[in-house]
Amino acid sequence: MKFKRSERLIDITHFLLERPHELVPLTFFAERYGSAKSSISEDLAIIKETFEQRGIGNLQTVPGASGGVKYITKVNRDDAKKMVSELITHLGNADRLLPGGYLYLTDLLGNPSLMNKVGRLLASAYAEKEIDVIMTVATKGIPIANAIASHLNVPVVIVRRDSKVTEGSTVSINYVSGSSKRIQTMVLSKRSLKEGSKVLIVDDFMKAGGTVNGMKNLLEEFSATVSGMAVLVESENVDERLVDDYISLTKLTDVNEKEKSITVSEGNYFTSDTTFLS
Amino acid sequence: MKFKRSERLIDITHFLLERPHELVPLTFFAERYGSAKSSISEDLAIIKETFEQRGIGNLQTVPGASGGVKYITKVNRDDAKKMVSELITHLGNADRLLPGGYLYLTDLLGNPSLMNKVGRLLASAYAEKEIDVIMTVATKGIPIANAIASHLNVPVVIVRRDSKVTEGSTVSINYVSGSSKRIQTMVLSKRSLKEGSKVLIVDDFMKAGGTVNGMKNLLEEFSATVSGMAVLVESENVDERLVDDYISLTKLTDVNEKEKSITVSEGNYFTSDTTFLS
Repeated sequence: MKFKRSERLIDITHFLLERPHELVPLTFFAERYGSAKSSISEDLAIIKETFEQRGIGNLQTVPGASGGVKYITKVNRDDAKKMVSELITHLGNADRLLPGGYLYLTDLLGNPSLMNKVGRLLASAYAEKEIDVIMTVATKGIPIANAIASHLNVPVVIVRRDSKVTEGSTVSINYVSGSSKRIQTMVLSKRSLKEGSKVLIVDDFMKAGGTVNGMKNLLEEFSATVSGMAVLVESENVDERLVDDYISLTKLTDVNEKEKSITVSEGNYFTSDTTFLS
Repeated sequence: MKFKRSERLIDITHFLLERPHELVPLTFFAERYGSAKSSISEDLAIIKETFEQRGIGNLQTVPGASGGVKYITKVNRDDAKKMVSELITHLGNADRLLPGGYLYLTDLLGNPSLMNKVGRLLASAYAEKEIDVIMTVATKGIPIANAIASHLNVPVVIVRRDSKVTEGSTVSINYVSGSSKRIQTMVLSKRSLKEGSKVLIVDDFMKAGGTVNGMKNLLEEFSATVSGMAVLVESENVDERLVDDYISLTKLTDVNEKEKSITVSEGNYFTSDTTFLS
């Protein structure tokens, strides 16, 4: 069965989008469609240009016998600005204000198209970093970690507050929460993280950074290293931040319980060393 | 700026894949590319045929002034068989066996490409059902719920074992776990679920069905109704199942701790009333 170019373009687009960061040999597509490698190369050139123009991502071509093509999720600056601005609008809604000055984020974390945008933004920021695995802490970091993972195509490991029989043997650490100064526990299943892994740490909200810092300490128990830290929201009003090398999409600059107002601005995403599709 | 057909096909494919179950007016694409509606209709006919042939999904065209096109994730039977068989291979690995006969699933739940397949399979099974929201219980059900949600384009709500300040006011119920007969608690944030919602309940593992049944009871507190129940693995050795109208992808038929063996087979996915792409 022969395929027309139009059908190949559609199928290759779907195939690559489902497998970001995976090297696919040109011969795979040539055999899949019964086409010459030269035709496939032309297809990929068209897809590459369209992906770049429409802010979908990069196609990287790796030459040679073991070469092929790789789709990398990347956003352009304009789209990123719009996505972060959408997040800010959502977060600034005063209905999110909970007693104690906490923010209700659950609806945002449960919104799949918003989470896909968050995943695209952060996967784009870490596209050039070596990342073997994404780590987060249950429960609220999980949708963010899953969203990034689907665009970086790496596994997610979940740190828990308590150990469960279904996790097998675990490693646990105690750490001091940055803002409340309470001692808390973190548990990670032993077999969930290989020694020497390069880890992207992710969370929904960061105040002083105690939780994120706890995850950093936990990584040491696995001889793993931190490739980056990313949060959806950071809080600005912090006496002493425990971590500094992180990326935040948004920043909570003020919460006024009395007047029921929330002020949110861009995080350090655009001022970090993030590169964009041009 | 004018777009060639090849560029339109690639961009429309990406656009629709990112927005399953969302009705997009033809005029949207006509304006996006400065093309005639008739050209867009031809593009969509090519995409529809390719999506069906390659097992990607359906394109539904809704005629009329308020009409448009909608991408629905659907799998064909052959692909579904392969995906479930891949799951069975993973699950049958004796290394998963934990003391007490429990199965270690954490690596599978953290694998984004596997979770995407699970999401495709279950979103396909429930594509024709009315579903407003997907509900699961923390922690292990979350990646499955997120994966299905991204293909059905509906929000996820997460039931917890304990209440947290960041959830606002909550509704809690007690229920009896089906297998251990212990009394347990489930908590759901009040504002996370609208009254009258149609809910797909999801979990990673089902034994007697106590947890899934607990979620059903919790839904009654929200005057919400069950549109379906889906699990990754069901356990066959159950004296009395508390629920019956569920879909399972796989079935754990035997666990032998002494001989360190696990026997896994297909769940009821293919014998349920699931329809496939043809």
